[in-house]
Amino acid sequence: MPGFEAAGVSCGIKNSKKDIAIIYSKENSRAAGVFTLNQVQAAPVNLCKKHVKNPVQAVVVNSGNANACTGEKGMHDAFKMAELTASGLNLNPGQVLVCSTGVIGEPLPMDKIESGIEKAVAVLGEGENADTDAAEAILTTDTKIKPSAYSCSLPDGNLYLAGIAKGSGMICPDMATMLAFLTTNASIEQSLLQELFSEAANKTFNAITVDGETSTNDTALILANGAKEGPEIKQGNAACEQFEKMLEQVCRELAFQIVEDGEGITKVINLTIKGAEDEEGGRIMARSVLNSPLVKTAFYGEDANWGRILAALGYSGIKFNPGKVDIFIGPCQLAADGGAVPFSEEEMKKILQERDIQVKVDLKQGPVEVKAWGTDMSHEYVSINSDYRS
Amino acid sequence: MPGFEAAGVSCGIKNSKKDIAIIYSKENSRAAGVFTLNQVQAAPVNLCKKHVKNPVQAVVVNSGNANACTGEKGMHDAFKMAELTASGLNLNPGQVLVCSTGVIGEPLPMDKIESGIEKAVAVLGEGENADTDAAEAILTTDTKIKPSAYSCSLPDGNLYLAGIAKGSGMICPDMATMLAFLTTNASIEQSLLQELFSEAANKTFNAITVDGETSTNDTALILANGAKEGPEIKQGNAACEQFEKMLEQVCRELAFQIVEDGEGITKVINLTIKGAEDEEGGRIMARSVLNSPLVKTAFYGEDANWGRILAALGYSGIKFNPGKVDIFIGPCQLAADGGAVPFSEEEMKKILQERDIQVKVDLKQGPVEVKAWGTDMSHEYVSINSDYRS
Repeated sequence: MPGFEAAGVSCGIKNSKKDIAIIYSKENSRAAGVFTLNQVQAAPVNLCKKHVKNPVQAVVVNSGNANACTGEKGMHDAFKMAELTASGLNLNPGQVLVCSTGVIGEPLPMDKIESGIEKAVAVLGEGENADTDAAEAILTTDTKIKPSAYSCSLPDGNLYLAGIAKGSGMICPDMATMLAFLTTNASIEQSLLQELFSEAANKTFNAITVDGETSTNDTALILANGAKEGPEIKQGNAACEQFEKMLEQVCRELAFQIVEDGEGITKVINLTIKGAEDEEGGRIMARSVLNSPLVKTAFYGEDANWGRILAALGYSGIKFNPGKVDIFIGPCQLAADGGAVPFSEEEMKKILQERDIQVKVDLKQGPVEVKAWGTDMSHEYVSINSDYRS
Repeated sequence: MPGFEAAGVSCGIKNSKKDIAIIYSKENSRAAGVFTLNQVQAAPVNLCKKHVKNPVQAVVVNSGNANACTGEKGMHDAFKMAELTASGLNLNPGQVLVCSTGVIGEPLPMDKIESGIEKAVAVLGEGENADTDAAEAILTTDTKIKPSAYSCSLPDGNLYLAGIAKGSGMICPDMATMLAFLTTNASIEQSLLQELFSEAANKTFNAITVDGETSTNDTALILANGAKEGPEIKQGNAACEQFEKMLEQVCRELAFQIVEDGEGITKVINLTIKGAEDEEGGRIMARSVLNSPLVKTAFYGEDANWGRILAALGYSGIKFNPGKVDIFIGPCQLAADGGAVPFSEEEMKKILQERDIQVKVDLKQGPVEVKAWGTDMSHEYVSINSDYRS
């Protein structure tokens, strides 16, 4: 990525695994972020919310400890991380964003963090694998790194957009659920960047659910530095349209990788809700279906249990007419106007044996279509989440 | 119960198990009911809502088929059940309440139902086990009957209150989650009966949660016939106070038996939320904690994971100050003012090995205390709910 450098090192929070990442922009960047809606917010989330409107040049991240529920010491430690990074890179602390992910309720081991930041600053951008190292250092119980990158040619230059994410998905014990970091050479005002990023996040990061939990640390950040004559993005210009598309694409790929990477998962449910009255209602209904333990265990058992889907829509809190609902799994219709439709059990069995399953619900209430992604719930989920401390 | 008769018979919906129950009052009763809030409501729920304000003399219940998502035929069948029962007992159909519980989306086998109602009418009140037979006939995947009964002497006579319930709890696949039927010889106006019953239900049936699912058939009914000079209950008189206490006690015992009887369950979580600003907020927060898969699997794993409890409070949607929250498991304090407190791992291990676990959260926001009951989530839960149709 033009004008950006990354590093990922190990400082001993997670034994020998990488646990400190820095993303550094050689020039000042506009930054934007979306954060957890949980009222219990980790110290670094509070710091990011303050710093994100500043011109920013670095993000520092540690994994293995969430710095959440840590009181005043937690806020002090988060600021110290910004300070240490700033001093290593000749910046002001206000130009640094901070993220932490890992166990809740334990103080950060600041001696390790301090040596880790020093080490990361020293190797910034060195070696072929610097980007991969950073992608690795933000992981917790993830089984693989989660990158995504696109570029395109525009009349006034090439536009680049890249991102990395972590999401331990449904297997996440005590752990913050997701982090994502995007970088781009777009030249763009902070307020427009925030607007476009929030929109893209709503359609992607906020449309995935694994177990209905909202963590204390969820954070997605984007840095835009305009480097290498990065194309100028203005509301409504051609470059803006291109940028919006790329942004949604990268966010969607990162989000999808988070869903895909749950150890306990055996199915990915691709849910489309058609005929909703509005976006928000459709999204709430989609979440209600994808968070229902009865729906999730039915998919794990490869059972075409449309009654559970209809019941989950029914308690979502959004008004609709149950007597008009059609439900499809793959190409097979299971319910028409809220009642059973005969279908081939044999064909359905084949569809439900796949890892990727398409579910379509038509509410016939309004013009809006919403897409969302979820997973099944397996024995493995219970094992991973009950055996965490033992 | 003075003036009431019951019967439970088998008509073949659930093979040789009992599947039709009738509760009959020799005199006209005042009835009151609380019903599922799911927008997808089974036909018998619709019928009950219409008939419950009438003077009522009978309740007819079938298990094995929920008569839900069955369209106009479903409504017709529910009314037919009332008609068949009424004609057997020389009543008007409007004096009969109807409940169904079982599989969703399949039409009722009306030939079997018809012979079952005839059979049940014929044996009403016969034999020592008539009440137990009725308690058995309303079960689905329950492992035992769920009765509760109290009486007390009052100046103008003895007051009796009895109830039976079914709840397949968290193991319930496709099945309606809970039914409860209470009878009393209280002499009481319908509107006051409804008011007192709704209050008691809110503190009991609505305070239990197993997997956050709201079924299409949930129904609790009470019939008050004033038989054997049943004491007169008027708002504010001494008998009313006694009746309210007994009502809450019977509802709580029935509710608790529902939680207790989940095959997949290894723990019962008794949650107290202290210091809430109001009842409703406290109850929403309690549900958020008891429905959290991460909290439930932690208890299954006997893990004192207070961070998950705090995070679940945080996404409940109710405002509070996370920095003030205290959390206790049994007598041990785990968190004070939102931060970790050292505790004896050994002592905690012993507490978490018990089947009954007391969890106390103090929000320090307001004067209200709310109690709620939930369960852990086990491998067995996933097995039962994924293997249902296979």
